[in-house]
Amino acid sequence: MSKLSLIKTAAHSALASVLAFVMVSTYSGSAQAQGRERGGTLGPLVLKEQGMFYLGGDVVHTDWATGPNGLLPAPRSGDIAINQMYVTFMVPQVQRGVPIILMHGGNLSGACYETTPDGRMGWYEYFARKGRAVYLPDQVSRARSGFDATAFNEVAAGVRAVSALPNLLVLTKAASWQAFRFGPSLGTAFSDEQFPVEAIDELAKQSIPDQNADQQQPPGIDLTPTRLAELGVKIGGAVLVGHSESGFYPELAALQNTAGLRGLISIEPASCAATTLSKDQIAKLVKLPTLVVFGDHLADVSNPILSWPAALADCEQYVAEINQAGGNATLLHLPAAGVFGNSHMMFQDKNNLQVGDMILSWIDEHVE
Amino acid sequence: MSKLSLIKTAAHSALASVLAFVMVSTYSGSAQAQGRERGGTLGPLVLKEQGMFYLGGDVVHTDWATGPNGLLPAPRSGDIAINQMYVTFMVPQVQRGVPIILMHGGNLSGACYETTPDGRMGWYEYFARKGRAVYLPDQVSRARSGFDATAFNEVAAGVRAVSALPNLLVLTKAASWQAFRFGPSLGTAFSDEQFPVEAIDELAKQSIPDQNADQQQPPGIDLTPTRLAELGVKIGGAVLVGHSESGFYPELAALQNTAGLRGLISIEPASCAATTLSKDQIAKLVKLPTLVVFGDHLADVSNPILSWPAALADCEQYVAEINQAGGNATLLHLPAAGVFGNSHMMFQDKNNLQVGDMILSWIDEHVE
Repeated sequence: MSKLSLIKTAAHSALASVLAFVMVSTYSGSAQAQGRERGGTLGPLVLKEQGMFYLGGDVVHTDWATGPNGLLPAPRSGDIAINQMYVTFMVPQVQRGVPIILMHGGNLSGACYETTPDGRMGWYEYFARKGRAVYLPDQVSRARSGFDATAFNEVAAGVRAVSALPNLLVLTKAASWQAFRFGPSLGTAFSDEQFPVEAIDELAKQSIPDQNADQQQPPGIDLTPTRLAELGVKIGGAVLVGHSESGFYPELAALQNTAGLRGLISIEPASCAATTLSKDQIAKLVKLPTLVVFGDHLADVSNPILSWPAALADCEQYVAEINQAGGNATLLHLPAAGVFGNSHMMFQDKNNLQVGDMILSWIDEHVE
Repeated sequence: MSKLSLIKTAAHSALASVLAFVMVSTYSGSAQAQGRERGGTLGPLVLKEQGMFYLGGDVVHTDWATGPNGLLPAPRSGDIAINQMYVTFMVPQVQRGVPIILMHGGNLSGACYETTPDGRMGWYEYFARKGRAVYLPDQVSRARSGFDATAFNEVAAGVRAVSALPNLLVLTKAASWQAFRFGPSLGTAFSDEQFPVEAIDELAKQSIPDQNADQQQPPGIDLTPTRLAELGVKIGGAVLVGHSESGFYPELAALQNTAGLRGLISIEPASCAATTLSKDQIAKLVKLPTLVVFGDHLADVSNPILSWPAALADCEQYVAEINQAGGNATLLHLPAAGVFGNSHMMFQDKNNLQVGDMILSWIDEHVE
């Protein structure tokens, strides 16, 4: 916004021409270094570093590291690690701006940002090609973060009630199709749908049984927001992106510790908790630039899981509250910005790089 | 072996000097392109491609995609994907030789090859820096491959017996310490131990509950070897590396289909099935160059899970059988080759790049 208004003010002046030239050539130079094509998606990917680490975690005693019927003669009792979070990362050779953390949503893993279900480049690589260090965690208790096997093996051993088995949630293909707004019902897509619906089975393969959908309160507290706040601190500051189940995790992380966070991006959270935040909480959240993004067709699906129009309304109220309290919050409703047909999985949609560019522009203008 | 014997034969001749010069400068050129330091571990990592895909998988109906006590109003019945295998990959800009698949062992995920528990470069990046395209799967039913939640939710719903809960195996810290031969007991390391034992908690964090340890036969068949054979075909041929639980998966994959496999590397399998393979099976396995690797201190731990000397003896017998049948098999027992102190986790040991170089040399000499 600041760059844009500067150019508008100086329109038709020599200054504007010079500024425009500098901006365009800086951009081209960066695009050339990181990838030769429009959008920077081709050419070598030149990395300074890549790898993984685990963040946090507790070493605890268990008596059921393996169940009563396990065939391998491994010890049942001893110390194991739980509550850790797996993070993989890429740091480009020519780095530009603040790092980005891409947190996935329910029933998914970091894989959802790597490559789209139909085989195109995801935001993980795209943002790295744009010069960003990118960090890609799996939620605590999901995928490469592992999970605590104790409760399951205790039920198998009869020392824990069957009713206390952690719930494992997987979204069926039909539920994803409707909840993610690919179209009115499985197999029928909206005419302008941006999700590559022919790859619905590939999306189904990305499903990881979800233990956090039911763990928003004790006894099973989802520790992912805590780990995300720690991750920001560890890497010296980052813009934190959450999606869907994790859509409000950036804000939950900020409520715990803003020290490692430079900006909060919420992509289609189920709720922005507008009606439940205290003044003290709002006062903490206004410190950070905030972007909330919603796609298209919010009212066009019958969705058993949640109401998208209600989620949008709640987040509009939240953005207004943050701005009234002196904060810097933006609500980006894609169709209102002239971008149509986007699903809940906008980072996998056919125009995912276009939406990614809008996110990067917001970071440029509001964080840096 | 071929290059080395060629040089020996031509010793002190002009030909030898020329050959040696060409070999050294080719190697240096490649090292310079992929990394500037000894071992090629520094400098930019230049990739032509990276990303992920899922391989195989079945879309099946379930009535228990979420349990009876799930709080989210998601549908229980519908189609979900099971049996798929997650694969992440890096293809270097300057590629050299046949691709490598790195299959992890029990209780772990592909993360174990990414970065060592004490934060050094793993084989995934190292082999890519040496010019290899590297493919890094998670076993079927593990980590980013997901797993079938149905049986767990059926038990929760009371429609399946508690005794039929899939077993979830996690190795305790003490069990890993002994089984992986870090030293005689938790906290005490061998004097020449190569595993970075101070990072034992970081290794514990890499644990993913293992459903395959007990699924070598029906009803729960481990489909990972099937997926590995398919992966070899998909990428047009690869050397397949297995470790520990997956140590004999390269051979199991080859027994299903050799078309996509160019070499088999078994790192410390629990068994090489020497006494159980049929003549027909041996006839299939002799078609592919085979390397079996064992580390140090095999007889120096009291290990509840398996006997390392027995595993070595079985694999020595297997290698002899393959060679007697006209095959090309090598048993590399590291201490016999003058490399001491290596644990079961040799790709994470302090000398992991030295062991990696020995693997790459074997591929150079026996596969290419």
